[in-house]
Amino acid sequence: MARARVHNFHVSLDGYGAGETITLEKPIGEAQGLFAPFDGRFIDGLGGVDAPITLDRALTTTWSQGIGAEIMGRGKFGPQTGAWTDDEWRGWWGDEPPFRTPVVVLTHHRRDPLHFDNGTSFHFLDATPVEALARAVELAGGRDVRIGGGPTTIRQFLAADLVDFLHLVTVPLTLGAGVSLWEGLAGVEDRFTVESVTSPSGLTHQFWNRVTSG
Amino acid sequence: MARARVHNFHVSLDGYGAGETITLEKPIGEAQGLFAPFDGRFIDGLGGVDAPITLDRALTTTWSQGIGAEIMGRGKFGPQTGAWTDDEWRGWWGDEPPFRTPVVVLTHHRRDPLHFDNGTSFHFLDATPVEALARAVELAGGRDVRIGGGPTTIRQFLAADLVDFLHLVTVPLTLGAGVSLWEGLAGVEDRFTVESVTSPSGLTHQFWNRVTSG
Ligand SMILES: NC(=O)c1ccc[n+]([C@@H]2O[C@H](COP(=O)([O-])OP(=O)(O)OC[C@H]3O[C@@H](n4cnc5c(N)ncnc54)[C@H](OP(=O)(O)O)[C@@H]3O)[C@@H](O)[C@H]2O)c1
Ligand SMILES: NC(=O)c1ccc[n+]([C@@H]2O[C@H](COP(=O)([O-])OP(=O)(O)OC[C@H]3O[C@@H](n4cnc5c(N)ncnc54)[C@H](OP(=O)(O)O)[C@@H]3O)[C@@H](O)[C@H]2O)c1
Repeated sequence: MARARVHNFHVSLDGYGAGETITLEKPIGEAQGLFAPFDGRFIDGLGGVDAPITLDRALTTTWSQGIGAEIMGRGKFGPQTGAWTDDEWRGWWGDEPPFRTPVVVLTHHRRDPLHFDNGTSFHFLDATPVEALARAVELAGGRDVRIGGGPTTIRQFLAADLVDFLHLVTVPLTLGAGVSLWEGLAGVEDRFTVESVTSPSGLTHQFWNRVTSG
Repeated sequence: MARARVHNFHVSLDGYGAGETITLEKPIGEAQGLFAPFDGRFIDGLGGVDAPITLDRALTTTWSQGIGAEIMGRGKFGPQTGAWTDDEWRGWWGDEPPFRTPVVVLTHHRRDPLHFDNGTSFHFLDATPVEALARAVELAGGRDVRIGGGPTTIRQFLAADLVDFLHLVTVPLTLGAGVSLWEGLAGVEDRFTVESVTSPSGLTHQFWNRVTSG
C-alpha cells in the first residue's frame, strides 16, 4: 500500500509554516527564517555534496526515498492567485524542478499540465484531499506519495486523516503571524506515535507515524 | 574527492564492535545484542519497507547513498581464518549480497575475485589501509567508499587518519569482552567534530566529520 508522507516540514515555535503573503520576491512570505537552516542540496542523498554530514542533513535525505509523486498546494507552486493569466510561469524551480516525479498541484483554477525533461510534471487539479491522493497514487506507480505543502495543504490532509508519516522540523524562532499548520487540528497527535529528538543545531525533529487501526 | 565513510557502526558501552570468536552459528560472536535494534531492511531507503519510519530507521538509510565501493575485513566476510580452503564460501549473504558495488575484502590470504548478478563483487586484497583505499576509490568510479567493518578494520583506517565520516551507534549494553573499536586510538576525537543525539529507543547516534586541514 502506497503511503502518504510529509518530509522536512518546517514550522515555527508558534506553529506557522509560511508567511501570510507570498510574492515573487518572497516565496515564503515574511517567514524566510524558517528555511535558513535548511540545506536542500541533501534532498537527493549524501552523494556528491561536499559538506559535513550532520544529523540535520542526514535526515533531509529521506525526502525522495521511495517517492513516486508529490501533492502540493498552488501557493507552493507560485505567488499567483485567481485564474491563471501567466502561462509562462512554470514554478519557482526553472528547468530542473527537484521533484523528478509527477506532481499534483491543487488549485481551483484550470490549467493544462506541464512536463519537464528531468521527469517532473505538474498536473493541476481541483479536488478533495481523498480524490487528490487517489490521483497521486495512480501517478506514483506503486511508490509512496509525498504531501509537499504548504501548510494549508498539509492541514487539509491531516484533517482528513490521510497522512501516514510526518517528519516535522521545529525551528526555534517565533514569527507572530503567517499560515498556521495547526489551526483546527486540536488533538491530531492522538492518531500518531510521535518521536522527538533535538539536534545539536537547535532544530527539533519529530517523526509522526500514524497508528494503524485494526 | 571521494570520501571514506563509515555508517551504522554499532558499539557497546564498553567499546566493543564484535565478539571475540566468530563462528558459522554466531556471525558476530558473543555480541548478538549489538545488532538487536538494527533493522537492516532500511539500508536501501524507506521505499517498500512497511514499518514505522523512526529516527533510527531514517538514519539507517544513509548507508548506501552515493557509495561506489566498500572495504571490509575478512572477519566480516566469513568465519574462516588462515588460508582459504573452502572456495564454496561466498560470504554470509547468499546470492544477493546487499552491497551491489565492488567490495575490497582485506586478507593476508590470496583468493580470486567473486562476482554476483546484483552488482556485488568481492576483491581479496593484502594491503595497507592507504593502498586498500586507493584500490577502492578506483573501483568506486567517482563515488564515495564505505569502510564497512568489522572493528579491526575500522580501527586501522581511523589510526591512519583515512576516515572522513563516521556514523557511530552506541547501544546501551555492556559486553565485557570482544573486539574493541577504540584500542590504540586515544584522542582520536580531536581530529573530528562530533555531534551526538540520543534516540527515543535509547540508541545514541554520533556523526563524526573529519576536520579538514588547510
Ligand atoms: N514550512 C515548510 O516546510 C513549507 C513547505 C512547503 C511550502 N512552504 C511554503 O508554504 C507557502 C504556501 O503555503 P500555503 O499554505 O499558503 O498554500 P498552499 O497549501 O501551497 O496552497 C493553497 C492553495 O492551493 C489551492 N488549494 C488548496 N487545497 C485545494 C483543494 N482541495 N482544491 C482546490 N484548490 C486547493 C488554493 O488555491 P486557489 O484557490 O487559488 O487555486 C489554495 O489557496 C509558500 O510560501 C511555500 O514556500 C513551506
Ligand atoms: N559493530 C558493527 O557495526 C559491525 C560492523 C561490521 C561487522 N561487524 C562484525 O565484526 C566482526 C568482524 O570484525 P573483526 O574486527 O573481528 O575483523 P575484520 O575487521 O572484519 O577482519 C579482520 C581480518 O581481516 C584481515 N585484515 C585486516 N586488515 C588487513 C590488512 N591491512 N591486510 C591484510 N589483511 C587484513 C585479517 O585476516 P587474515 O589475516 O586472516 O587474512 C584480519 O584478521 C564480525 O563479527 C562482524 O559481524 C560489526
